Amino acid sequence: MTAHVTPAGGARPVLGQNQYGKAETRVVRITRNGAVHHIKDLNVSISLTGDMEEVHLSGSNANVLPTDTAKNTVYAFAKEYGVESAEQFGVRLARHFVTSQPAIATARVRIEEYAWDRIATAGSQEARHSFVRDGRETRLAQVSYDGSGWEVVSGLTDLTVLNATDSEFRGFRKDGYTTLQETGDRVLATRVRARWRHAWSDETEPMPDWDGTYEQARGHLLAAFSQTYSPSLQHTLYTMGARVVDEVSGIPEIRLSLPNQHHFLVDLAPFGLTNDNEVYVVADRPYGLIEATVLRQGAEPRIAPDLMYAQ
Amino acid sequence: MTAHVTPAGGARPVLGQNQYGKAETRVVRITRNGAVHHIKDLNVSISLTGDMEEVHLSGSNANVLPTDTAKNTVYAFAKEYGVESAEQFGVRLARHFVTSQPAIATARVRIEEYAWDRIATAGSQEARHSFVRDGRETRLAQVSYDGSGWEVVSGLTDLTVLNATDSEFRGFRKDGYTTLQETGDRVLATRVRARWRHAWSDETEPMPDWDGTYEQARGHLLAAFSQTYSPSLQHTLYTMGARVVDEVSGIPEIRLSLPNQHHFLVDLAPFGLTNDNEVYVVADRPYGLIEATVLRQGAEPRIAPDLMYAQ
Amino acid sequence: MTAHVTPAGGARPVLGQNQYGKAETRVVRITRNGAVHHIKDLNVSISLTGDMEEVHLSGSNANVLPTDTAKNTVYAFAKEYGVESAEQFGVRLARHFVTSQPAIATARVRIEEYAWDRIATAGSQEARHSFVRDGRETRLAQVSYDGSGWEVVSGLTDLTVLNATDSEFRGFRKDGYTTLQETGDRVLATRVRARWRHAWSDETEPMPDWDGTYEQARGHLLAAFSQTYSPSLQHTLYTMGARVVDEVSGIPEIRLSLPNQHHFLVDLAPFGLTNDNEVYVVADRPYGLIEATVLRQGAEPRIAPDLMYAQ
Amino acid sequence: MTAHVTPAGGARPVLGQNQYGKAETRVVRITRNGAVHHIKDLNVSISLTGDMEEVHLSGSNANVLPTDTAKNTVYAFAKEYGVESAEQFGVRLARHFVTSQPAIATARVRIEEYAWDRIATAGSQEARHSFVRDGRETRLAQVSYDGSGWEVVSGLTDLTVLNATDSEFRGFRKDGYTTLQETGDRVLATRVRARWRHAWSDETEPMPDWDGTYEQARGHLLAAFSQTYSPSLQHTLYTMGARVVDEVSGIPEIRLSLPNQHHFLVDLAPFGLTNDNEVYVVADRPYGLIEATVLRQGAEPRIAPDLMYAQ
Repeated sequence: MTAHVTPAGGARPVLGQNQYGKAETRVVRITRNGAVHHIKDLNVSISLTGDMEEVHLSGSNANVLPTDTAKNTVYAFAKEYGVESAEQFGVRLARHFVTSQPAIATARVRIEEYAWDRIATAGSQEARHSFVRDGRETRLAQVSYDGSGWEVVSGLTDLTVLNATDSEFRGFRKDGYTTLQETGDRVLATRVRARWRHAWSDETEPMPDWDGTYEQARGHLLAAFSQTYSPSLQHTLYTMGARVVDEVSGIPEIRLSLPNQHHFLVDLAPFGLTNDNEVYVVADRPYGLIEATVLRQGAEPRIAPDLMYAQ
Repeated sequence: MTAHVTPAGGARPVLGQNQYGKAETRVVRITRNGAVHHIKDLNVSISLTGDMEEVHLSGSNANVLPTDTAKNTVYAFAKEYGVESAEQFGVRLARHFVTSQPAIATARVRIEEYAWDRIATAGSQEARHSFVRDGRETRLAQVSYDGSGWEVVSGLTDLTVLNATDSEFRGFRKDGYTTLQETGDRVLATRVRARWRHAWSDETEPMPDWDGTYEQARGHLLAAFSQTYSPSLQHTLYTMGARVVDEVSGIPEIRLSLPNQHHFLVDLAPFGLTNDNEVYVVADRPYGLIEATVLRQGAEPRIAPDLMYAQ
Repeated sequence: MTAHVTPAGGARPVLGQNQYGKAETRVVRITRNGAVHHIKDLNVSISLTGDMEEVHLSGSNANVLPTDTAKNTVYAFAKEYGVESAEQFGVRLARHFVTSQPAIATARVRIEEYAWDRIATAGSQEARHSFVRDGRETRLAQVSYDGSGWEVVSGLTDLTVLNATDSEFRGFRKDGYTTLQETGDRVLATRVRARWRHAWSDETEPMPDWDGTYEQARGHLLAAFSQTYSPSLQHTLYTMGARVVDEVSGIPEIRLSLPNQHHFLVDLAPFGLTNDNEVYVVADRPYGLIEATVLRQGAEPRIAPDLMYAQ
Repeated sequence: MTAHVTPAGGARPVLGQNQYGKAETRVVRITRNGAVHHIKDLNVSISLTGDMEEVHLSGSNANVLPTDTAKNTVYAFAKEYGVESAEQFGVRLARHFVTSQPAIATARVRIEEYAWDRIATAGSQEARHSFVRDGRETRLAQVSYDGSGWEVVSGLTDLTVLNATDSEFRGFRKDGYTTLQETGDRVLATRVRARWRHAWSDETEPMPDWDGTYEQARGHLLAAFSQTYSPSLQHTLYTMGARVVDEVSGIPEIRLSLPNQHHFLVDLAPFGLTNDNEVYVVADRPYGLIEATVLRQGAEPRIAPDLMYAQ
């Protein structure tokens, strides 16, 4: 970088990490098998890095492919190649920008996918071209490419789960500000954010079954949550993460962010009533927030903690 | 009302329609049948009217039951009576305030209900005390009572549906500001808000099957949407509403608010591509908004248009 | 309405109140006085009623001016006539649809206006074409026209205010579910929603000074809130509303919706500390909700309660 | 870490980076100088790391100070020490957890601060205990402590600015998916997210003037935005960041995230009108997203890109 002289005579400030792109391109892709339609509903955010000093420092836009072009490319690729899965679509887009643009060194594609179910009509088969949005959770994919290696992190957000029993919280540390009572039976509820990294990084190896691993990971998260006695949300988190790492092949790392959606037992004594774990107030804020990464033995941790909240 | 004299010498302003209460009391009620737990998850808003001039005009609180008490009553009733359905719970609460408080003339209880599914665990029966939030839509109930008659309006919001074909928009009126092209095949998507009024108003008559009518109404809305060729969203709306009024007994009136979630066909010609109803951009704003009431012959319209957006 | 025969042999359901239009058209209008630019930033929602049975019942769109045309008209009018004020712009739009479209009987235009301040640059005059969004509140306007008379309701939302003292709540009614303690000094905080109706309805009379009355009404709401000792939020509401009706000419009616944003005194006794009205927890839900209309003597109430939450 | 043997015989998954705490504790602190009240309104999120393997792996809670205690500590400290500034309050909290809890190695405190203005009452001095929320932006602070060194990152979000002219976008790169036209005069609008790191890290050095640097940084961001001709949002970003690094002492690093809130010129030609940079449609999505770090010469970059969206 050329050191420009600032008016004050000091060295000109330096440009650090920078990236740019088009965020939240909403694309719906319809495919037809005869009268049966299929739908893919994505929100695609593209972020590019490369030789971008001039645009920041001198104002030359010669290296800047417009973000509007990134948007157009999403739509054109949806037509040309279809959307097999969020991850596969992301791979195609990331490769395109890095390989076709000399000034672009790396591309990162983040995708949210919204699920739709076919509308089931009474007494007959499912609708062929009618859908109802399945609001259960949002599927996430992040694909990063630097021209040689790939990193794909899949995940989900807003998967809300609750155990009505088999959860306790006891034996914890206390200090002068501790008023919480120990409990042997509480409601445990959380809205799961999860991101798991695929081992796949070399294009010459076959790609994972993106949809299959998603369903497996989701299923194991739910199963581990529901089948495990919980001494703490931390222990439940580890159990959920370990289950995915143990059971889903090709996933060496997972990170979970679990807000403790407190369900407090209401004190009904003033009304002459006993609350035998029946009536709970659901609190909005504050909430406990438990976050951790779980890794296969020997795996390198690469999911940054703040990725959990990334846009 | 006594006409107080204002400082300026004119007549004192008059108190008009007024109401007060506790909004958004979040209550979760757990019930056990042996090892099998059941869950009801509600957001309850109570609004009371009555002899409340003094609190507004003189500052006397003698007639004001605190909103905090309304909250306590929700929790206590959840324990004492359980939550059979949102509507039935609302009836119980509304009756309580009107009959126990001399100053309260009418009560209106609005309830949102969030659905939970049991977590299905692989290779076995469903979990007995573990649940996953079903995000498909929010169920709504409004119960009003004035000491003699009842009005119950049920409904739903955020039921998002899409037809990938069998929708057109042609033959519309044009003026000097019209640029829209006619289309014979478009995506039709909307996020349904619906409110239907029950005929039941007399406590000496048996109450409807609240849960059963909800599932019936929801099912007919989905079926009518998916099975009908759409010349316009207005026509689809009428068809959906008429289906409910025709098929669900005890519902003389329904109102629907349907935002047209525009899915515009992307112009891919600049890239040498043809878009044969495959790639759509999903627009956030602006959106068409179609609203109407459908009534059984002879029924009196009583669902106010702005109820659709009420809190 | 013609009674069509349904397949089941009964009378066909009847179309009730219906309306349609384009919601949330976001328009920014820039005006130049030499080097000095001015900005108006609006969100416009148009709703039309009229002879619309055929579109709902038979699917004929002959009477339906597309909602897309309503959007275009907003943009075209912003150019042709400018945006003097939200209300004046709404009047122009509403008149256009009713007078130019035979099938349209009434038009309602709802506008949100977002305020911008000029960026003040150190040591010099304010910027001439640079603005920073003033997030203090959103201004609201609703204009209704039926071809003969006008109704204009102005207002605001998200005006959040707090009194740190001079608020109490005592002498209230108690029942078996009451646990709230009386308090002689509390924090009173609310997020004001207000809608005031202008007396102006006859086009041959001069229009009010829309911007001037807005600033007056806003100022009186704030002054009444801050200058009044509060025995209850109801009393504060009445005082605020009465002040506007008394002091702002041409406003016979105002409605206020005031959520009681509870600031609860934290119990610090377990930590050996006294909380002398110093530390408060701010609760999200539930909240008290106080709503009332205040009218000039003899004025007819016309602001519907649920308008406060309308979209 | 001890390698536990999993039931399947493989190595047990490893716990990686983990943290826990209480998020979004909403505290309001009132201070009185005679009849004049002052208000601080914060949202505090605490995250702790340390010796937490056992809680995750074996379920022992012996090292876990409850998140409820973290909440209590916020309230107690607000009383005991007051809230001088968000940063100073964060320093006090972070130090407490690390120094008083043997199992806690590091603490990170994130604070949002909401600004309130005194209500100005006509013809007199400002109100002494009445406030109106100033919605202009949210102030952010993050304090990290590991028992020896400190890192304080301040910032803001939702500072929305607009230049009505003096912005162009030309000379950019084009490929087969580029349709964007060059423009010599456009509206440039963005909602600024900024985070700047303070050089202060050694407790034996005097702390910066946290409030003073905040106002300086905010002022320079606004001034640089408004005073600079923009060839691209990237160039504007660099200019804004460099201004802060150059002009505010003690800030070696700043990162900005600037969404390009597209204001597209409406095509009014179909209506026989010319749009001479007067009427714009404001788009919600997609949006360009420009992100970069600007550093003082020789400064080490330490603000992680995804911190910008952290919770």
